[in-house]
Amino acid sequence: MISVGVIGYGYWGPNLARCVAEGENCALGAVTDVSAASLAKAAKRHPAAKLYDRWRDCVSDPALDAVVIATPVGTHFEIALAALQMGKHVLIEKPITAKSAEATILIEEAAKRKLTLMVDHTFVYTPAVQKIRELMDDGKLGEVYYYDSTRINLGLFQRDVNVIWDLAVHDLAILDFIFDEKPVAISASSAGHIPGSPENMAHVSLFFTGGLVAHLNVNWLAPVKIRQTLIAGSRRMIVYDDLEPSEKVKVYDRGVNLSGSQEDVRKLRISYRVGDMWAPEWSVKEALLTVTEHFVSSILTGDKPITSGMNGLRVVEVLESAILSLKQRGAPIEINPMRKAS
Amino acid sequence: MISVGVIGYGYWGPNLARCVAEGENCALGAVTDVSAASLAKAAKRHPAAKLYDRWRDCVSDPALDAVVIATPVGTHFEIALAALQMGKHVLIEKPITAKSAEATILIEEAAKRKLTLMVDHTFVYTPAVQKIRELMDDGKLGEVYYYDSTRINLGLFQRDVNVIWDLAVHDLAILDFIFDEKPVAISASSAGHIPGSPENMAHVSLFFTGGLVAHLNVNWLAPVKIRQTLIAGSRRMIVYDDLEPSEKVKVYDRGVNLSGSQEDVRKLRISYRVGDMWAPEWSVKEALLTVTEHFVSSILTGDKPITSGMNGLRVVEVLESAILSLKQRGAPIEINPMRKAS
Amino acid sequence: MISVGVIGYGYWGPNLARCVAEGENCALGAVTDVSAASLAKAAKRHPAAKLYDRWRDCVSDPALDAVVIATPVGTHFEIALAALQMGKHVLIEKPITAKSAEATILIEEAAKRKLTLMVDHTFVYTPAVQKIRELMDDGKLGEVYYYDSTRINLGLFQRDVNVIWDLAVHDLAILDFIFDEKPVAISASSAGHIPGSPENMAHVSLFFTGGLVAHLNVNWLAPVKIRQTLIAGSRRMIVYDDLEPSEKVKVYDRGVNLSGSQEDVRKLRISYRVGDMWAPEWSVKEALLTVTEHFVSSILTGDKPITSGMNGLRVVEVLESAILSLKQRGAPIEINPMRKAS
Amino acid sequence: MISVGVIGYGYWGPNLARCVAEGENCALGAVTDVSAASLAKAAKRHPAAKLYDRWRDCVSDPALDAVVIATPVGTHFEIALAALQMGKHVLIEKPITAKSAEATILIEEAAKRKLTLMVDHTFVYTPAVQKIRELMDDGKLGEVYYYDSTRINLGLFQRDVNVIWDLAVHDLAILDFIFDEKPVAISASSAGHIPGSPENMAHVSLFFTGGLVAHLNVNWLAPVKIRQTLIAGSRRMIVYDDLEPSEKVKVYDRGVNLSGSQEDVRKLRISYRVGDMWAPEWSVKEALLTVTEHFVSSILTGDKPITSGMNGLRVVEVLESAILSLKQRGAPIEINPMRKAS
Repeated sequence: MISVGVIGYGYWGPNLARCVAEGENCALGAVTDVSAASLAKAAKRHPAAKLYDRWRDCVSDPALDAVVIATPVGTHFEIALAALQMGKHVLIEKPITAKSAEATILIEEAAKRKLTLMVDHTFVYTPAVQKIRELMDDGKLGEVYYYDSTRINLGLFQRDVNVIWDLAVHDLAILDFIFDEKPVAISASSAGHIPGSPENMAHVSLFFTGGLVAHLNVNWLAPVKIRQTLIAGSRRMIVYDDLEPSEKVKVYDRGVNLSGSQEDVRKLRISYRVGDMWAPEWSVKEALLTVTEHFVSSILTGDKPITSGMNGLRVVEVLESAILSLKQRGAPIEINPMRKAS
Repeated sequence: MISVGVIGYGYWGPNLARCVAEGENCALGAVTDVSAASLAKAAKRHPAAKLYDRWRDCVSDPALDAVVIATPVGTHFEIALAALQMGKHVLIEKPITAKSAEATILIEEAAKRKLTLMVDHTFVYTPAVQKIRELMDDGKLGEVYYYDSTRINLGLFQRDVNVIWDLAVHDLAILDFIFDEKPVAISASSAGHIPGSPENMAHVSLFFTGGLVAHLNVNWLAPVKIRQTLIAGSRRMIVYDDLEPSEKVKVYDRGVNLSGSQEDVRKLRISYRVGDMWAPEWSVKEALLTVTEHFVSSILTGDKPITSGMNGLRVVEVLESAILSLKQRGAPIEINPMRKAS
Repeated sequence: MISVGVIGYGYWGPNLARCVAEGENCALGAVTDVSAASLAKAAKRHPAAKLYDRWRDCVSDPALDAVVIATPVGTHFEIALAALQMGKHVLIEKPITAKSAEATILIEEAAKRKLTLMVDHTFVYTPAVQKIRELMDDGKLGEVYYYDSTRINLGLFQRDVNVIWDLAVHDLAILDFIFDEKPVAISASSAGHIPGSPENMAHVSLFFTGGLVAHLNVNWLAPVKIRQTLIAGSRRMIVYDDLEPSEKVKVYDRGVNLSGSQEDVRKLRISYRVGDMWAPEWSVKEALLTVTEHFVSSILTGDKPITSGMNGLRVVEVLESAILSLKQRGAPIEINPMRKAS
Repeated sequence: MISVGVIGYGYWGPNLARCVAEGENCALGAVTDVSAASLAKAAKRHPAAKLYDRWRDCVSDPALDAVVIATPVGTHFEIALAALQMGKHVLIEKPITAKSAEATILIEEAAKRKLTLMVDHTFVYTPAVQKIRELMDDGKLGEVYYYDSTRINLGLFQRDVNVIWDLAVHDLAILDFIFDEKPVAISASSAGHIPGSPENMAHVSLFFTGGLVAHLNVNWLAPVKIRQTLIAGSRRMIVYDDLEPSEKVKVYDRGVNLSGSQEDVRKLRISYRVGDMWAPEWSVKEALLTVTEHFVSSILTGDKPITSGMNGLRVVEVLESAILSLKQRGAPIEINPMRKAS
């Protein structure tokens, strides 16, 4: 039985605490928040959990095996490092840290101490994204051409991070999971329309080693909510709409066929293939419960989690490059040329 | 009665010929095409029109007052220049020319001879875009924040121009019509997935003088057809969906309100405004018929058309800048810094 | 502070208990269920509530002011009558009783003892239905023509009641609330496709005193979920789609105009009016919480609730007539000719 | 080469004339209409066709092999009978006649003279309905439970026939084609909201010999256009939406499974099956062109058309029964008990 402390009981923390409390092989040992009102809510829902108003008390609690960190991004590193140093396994809300250098330190610390370090890339654990990965593993899409995502709605504006750190991070986590290729360069543009607030709208183009490209359209200031991703390959194409109540993933047998001379590509003739559409079904399970259960199971087996510190690091590296590019109106930025070379 | 010759009877020419034949104050005097099969079709539908297989014969026909050019883009300039020099009024299919320098020459030639030079930016003449312009003129949107358009489908791949020249041109024409501000810089990225074919997918960010930004997502290789544009302002937001059978334009009373200190923007508080939605209705009329009627009426009155040579030129300038940017993976390109300065 | 006991902690009871616990001016005093497992769940969520496994103990508990009954329909009458006789105010899950005669007895008992008797017609308390009633009160629809509702999905099959008692009851409650006219006759047809189960599909036509008609399409065995109601009047028409995340109620300025001789209706000419569409917005509040708060407030003020015993009775009378009609393949049945006459 | 005369050039006649003119193995020999304006339009589009203003001249024209009748329903019988008597093959717009007795006479006359008699049940020739029939032939649906159709929109009000004769006839034609079982009884209700006009809204329940039931919801006075049909079977369910641009037919692997004692159905347990959805694709072809080509090919081969006079008769019999029922507010009416018995 793994005893888990949740640090941060604001917007997302209560969901994590609930999943820890409901999950198998674990128990909610403590809840930590600086707000007395938040702690009071936690006490009502989880009368058996200890309450802390200082995270240092939580990471020092010898009765806890692990902590889940759901505080503002800027505080992730300090808390996580202290927790690892106290021998706790750590699950961190996305993005893992505010800087890639910080993520690297956490990864090293966890490795040294043989502790589980995991980042909560929730979408990776949804049945829809799992199904997409499965379709790709089966070669159903053929050669993959692109990933093009629109993730927009009205609000919630954040004080400390812009819309890329808030919303594009979901797509970057999905990209990191479903594709083996990794992005090598990025071009991003953005706009901030509300005085005193971070950028609320951004468009991000990602270039990969092969022919694959990706594009992310994220926006906090849109009249309607859209969560739609197109993933196209030479054999089939996917429309993934996260707002559809049932058929979230639709697979289209559509594309182009080429005929004619392979030697002279200019003579190739294009014909269009418009075939059946198919929407696979799956059992429903809350993704966040899968996240906390996977965290606990990784601790028990010692296996690396699907979204380990390294996955968190790669996402942060792309976020950093995106910020560099949008400050130059889309100038292309190489992503971590050092690590690529090694 | 204006006698009009249509040059090019392939994909779009038959529609233009039909509208000329149906319109008021004009007659279809001639149809020109290099293909005998195309001319046979034209003969069947328009038995009274003369038939030419060489465009030079058409532009020299003294019985014609005007010509409509619907040939491949690369030929627009030569045909249009010859027609103007023969004293014909000219309507050219979009984009007006393959190079901005060519458009400039046509504008000067038409001005010198006091002839009407018009480009067929069809969308500008749709009731939906007219309604959007009207809403902006009435100040219904407040300060305009952005224009974000998705224009994707499967096919039709073109041999000679890429997807930006084929699809983004529609949005650039709409932008030129509905906004008084003009774009000053551009960042574009693209991908070509089919050997021997031009780029089939592109994302274009446009920066304007004020806070306004625009983004265009165009794609020939998408599993589903989408024609959706968001236009957001400080007071209201529009969703324009050209595939909706009736409610193409929806106006949302949504956005954010700011309260607190205007001096210290960091202390501003954001609240969300989620109000009514409203879909105005209008009479239905085919946009292309409005185009040919406006061409004829401009000839008769001598007034400058809504989409004159200058509008066509501005669109081509942006297209040229887009191509420069996408070759550098999104590097920002200034749009016509010379003319801006003047 | 009104102390409330909830009887029945199966499918709907936990929601009612939660709303009682969260509401103002009331407290959850007790939970009753025959299942030990259900009581264990209730104990975990509501540690302060007493637990009973026999409803007689609950209705006899002198510490309780009121009870909420969420047991199978067949037991409503006996429990409610006993509760009233013990001086408790009573809120009953829809439909109020299995027979109209039973509802009449409850109404009389409550009146005699000056106790509040209310039925949980939840949809009446939704912002959407409240808005529709408001539009009708304002005369926005003109003369009302019809109400036509489709309420279908896959499952949940019930053992004891058919799909009319389960789903059509919602529409009958809405009809009773939004229209002053009451139905005078009914024609219903149905089908049962699953051996050993009640009818899973039914179509019900309701005839009112004026020109108004209503139709209900209810189905437990449909591949997709639909909750769509059209309400048409001479001036405007409503589409109410309960599955829409935001714009649940759309008001269309559509219909027909009549011109010509009023004396000779055969000479009237019809023209169509296709005007704007408008989707009003409202604040979001859980309808069930409004239900329990209205129950408590009715107890405190002594005012008759919006959905009193009489409203529950009228709905049961229509249900009884529907069952008579469907056994005769749609033969029309008069609804309560006695009471109408009085 | 079959020479065809089209009688009636109002709303639907021009479409039939165009398909005759475009089709193989036939030619448009004549067009007939009482209106000079309509004939002028026909002359412009079909310069080679003869023009008649009296249908008697058309059916007497020895140069014609066949006629297509697209006049008001009340005139179908007289024209068709005269045409058959003059030895012409006959295609009649739906419904075949205004009375079933008339259809019977036409069938006998055509049989006696070995002439082709066909009714234009257009929907039967759509790729969507053909695909549905194919799915049923393949046993994909299992035992069929129901057909439930909604066919509503604003307008067009008709003077001479009510909404059942105008819209429900489409569903009756589809039912006649896709199911081998025939309806034995009917219950219908209706309402007319516009003075001087026929009923604009109706609901029709059809009972078949087996467990199958059908329901039709037709309405000329609805704010939105809906063309949606559910067809459910024990193994799979279909949603057929004729307004969908591409995926008109969706096949759902959904339903209920029964387990437990077959002897005591009360002990059967129900579980829900929610599987994949699948939307088959097909080539696009205009249904009306298939209609006229099938008519010509039936003449040439002598084979009975898919929608022969007998199919037309059966549909009219159901329409007549529907009218009887709706006059009695849904009282059930047996459909042609005589013929059933034979």
